[in-house]
Amino acid sequence: MTIAPTQKALSQLEADAPHSLVVRFGAEQPLKMDAGVDLKPFQIAYQTYGTLNAAKSNAILLCHALTGDQHVANVHPITGKPGWWEVMVGPGKPIDTDRYFVIASNVVGGCMGTTGPASTNPATGRAWSIDLPLVTIRDMVRAQAMLIDHLGIETLFAVIGGSMGGMQVLQWAASYPERVFTAMPIATAAKHSSQNIAFHEVGRQSVMADPEWRGGRYLDAGVSPTKGLAVARMAAHITYLSEEALQRKFGRKLQGRDAPTFSFDADFQIENYLRYQGNSFVDRFDANSYLYVTRACDYFDLAEDYGGSLAAAFKGSKTRFCVVSFDSDWLYPTSASRAIVHALNAAAASVSFVEIDTDRGHDAFLLNVPEFIATTRGFLEAAARARGIPMPSGKGG
Amino acid sequence: MTIAPTQKALSQLEADAPHSLVVRFGAEQPLKMDAGVDLKPFQIAYQTYGTLNAAKSNAILLCHALTGDQHVANVHPITGKPGWWEVMVGPGKPIDTDRYFVIASNVVGGCMGTTGPASTNPATGRAWSIDLPLVTIRDMVRAQAMLIDHLGIETLFAVIGGSMGGMQVLQWAASYPERVFTAMPIATAAKHSSQNIAFHEVGRQSVMADPEWRGGRYLDAGVSPTKGLAVARMAAHITYLSEEALQRKFGRKLQGRDAPTFSFDADFQIENYLRYQGNSFVDRFDANSYLYVTRACDYFDLAEDYGGSLAAAFKGSKTRFCVVSFDSDWLYPTSASRAIVHALNAAAASVSFVEIDTDRGHDAFLLNVPEFIATTRGFLEAAARARGIPMPSGKGG
Repeated sequence: MTIAPTQKALSQLEADAPHSLVVRFGAEQPLKMDAGVDLKPFQIAYQTYGTLNAAKSNAILLCHALTGDQHVANVHPITGKPGWWEVMVGPGKPIDTDRYFVIASNVVGGCMGTTGPASTNPATGRAWSIDLPLVTIRDMVRAQAMLIDHLGIETLFAVIGGSMGGMQVLQWAASYPERVFTAMPIATAAKHSSQNIAFHEVGRQSVMADPEWRGGRYLDAGVSPTKGLAVARMAAHITYLSEEALQRKFGRKLQGRDAPTFSFDADFQIENYLRYQGNSFVDRFDANSYLYVTRACDYFDLAEDYGGSLAAAFKGSKTRFCVVSFDSDWLYPTSASRAIVHALNAAAASVSFVEIDTDRGHDAFLLNVPEFIATTRGFLEAAARARGIPMPSGKGG
Repeated sequence: MTIAPTQKALSQLEADAPHSLVVRFGAEQPLKMDAGVDLKPFQIAYQTYGTLNAAKSNAILLCHALTGDQHVANVHPITGKPGWWEVMVGPGKPIDTDRYFVIASNVVGGCMGTTGPASTNPATGRAWSIDLPLVTIRDMVRAQAMLIDHLGIETLFAVIGGSMGGMQVLQWAASYPERVFTAMPIATAAKHSSQNIAFHEVGRQSVMADPEWRGGRYLDAGVSPTKGLAVARMAAHITYLSEEALQRKFGRKLQGRDAPTFSFDADFQIENYLRYQGNSFVDRFDANSYLYVTRACDYFDLAEDYGGSLAAAFKGSKTRFCVVSFDSDWLYPTSASRAIVHALNAAAASVSFVEIDTDRGHDAFLLNVPEFIATTRGFLEAAARARGIPMPSGKGG
């Protein structure tokens, strides 16, 4: 007997009919996945900001991080919070929507409208769940290329992203070098380290240990492994912040009291903060999607597709690269960015490298870090001049 | 209706009747706990190695780490594995059982025979569970002092321990300076940082998220939150190893296959290793004990009891200190040891400080790291000469 809930879960509704632009690809346009499967039909949910110019030369693709989405610069339809990169994207901002046509799509395997495990499998009428083939970073990028084709854009002015988004940037530059004028991989790595895999595995095990995960088929039963997913998010969240930032922000401060309770309540502010991060995450993210996107990162090793040589991935590239790291980022440390830069140098590619001095850790790429924002503005302005993209009207130029 | 299993769970049996020496303190000798409660009766399980000399001048107390126990240098009664510090403790080893009388006791709140949450609460006949008052590092040390009294020892030649054991060493030196001839805090900190608390909180939430935790009363039902505890252990285990050690040992190596499975199986060796660590841990450790010992560390802030001045904790101390850190330890980094050294210097205490160069991370204190072993041997030999402890017979002197 199968459980047949009368109503779809929130995550399945968003997955199928998102608050976004959507392009649907029919059976004649499958996504050829690294798992060896043709995914068909499938859909991509995306947002755009600004206007594509007549020359179609001003398009920027933004690639989101692990649990990000396409809602870069608009109020998020589920959380009601601002977009995740409003500090960087908008009129007059470094990624200037008065000048550029900005595209952001939800990744394959996500849960905000692009086909993912919470989407309805047309063959069964139920959620794909873990029957969806595993997704790779290259699959995500292949799907994005189909979206860019659909939008009639030949060459992207820029592909930009941090963390898992930066992996997509690197994959774009390797897979479609002629379609990427500039590439900005931020706070990322060309392959997942053993420690990176380890933290992701803890998160996955936490989700799968929750009995409400139900072998992955929780949406059929109208439930969700929220406790396991919240713990996964708590563990991951620690890796997004530097030890210094935690100490400065929380230290050993108690939560609204003068003395510890001698109980397992959240005595310390840091405990309260983590619990909040865990609990709020489960309201906006699908647990199976979390398994898929973490796995995609773990499988990422760009050099592997090029005989073990990362330089070979970029051989002959005309793309202008700007590699950015943050010195307090211990998840994707500067050494990982340096490895990318060394490969780009070996490939004789054009590359700028900036290590930003900040104590805010990995999440610095999402925050108002003035040196980072100025770096992005300067790099893009120089590249726009080289590409001949006019300044917005009324701003000289 | 209460569930009444016919047989006690393994952890409760070991907690009540351990494979160890045991000293029981009756109602007339309560443990005065920081929680404001007199714990009575209670018991301490311990092991000894070597012989106490006539002058009672050669006793060394070893303090174990978070999930360690008293089985330092004998086969572990549950796992069948060697003791956790056989590399350091034994005949002819740096902590030479031919020369010293070595004592190791299980901490209060533990699960190997000293009173902890798995022990039977005499008032109810059931496991204490989370009705046991919260335990602090100072409580652990108070109990150890009662054991040392019971053994008729006035002054310990040395108190030695790593990680949470190092916290106990610091507490011993502060609480009972006249009873500690030498103190060796290893890979530890005088207070838990925000990041330290954060990782422990993830572990606790993982245990408590497991429905088999049953509000803490799982032993009554003859079950155990093994899945949540395993995930907690996996997360903690990452913090015990350095990024470099993980990369060297596992890197991105696949587990017994040539290509990834495109599934959520353990593709990578690091995943398999972590799952093994998690699964084997639950066979030897009680989940509630894990909550208690992590909480004890989080509450630890030695300076707090001395008006916020760590130096004040050691004022007038005649103890000889040897502080040891490992340069790749990111859980209790060298900076935390330096803070201890600075305080000891400010208190005009006798202190040696050694930072060991190794890529093995926090767990280096448990491993065969030659420089560390030589350091321990040298420091103890010099101190033994100062204390007038003779060399073992047949070894000159």
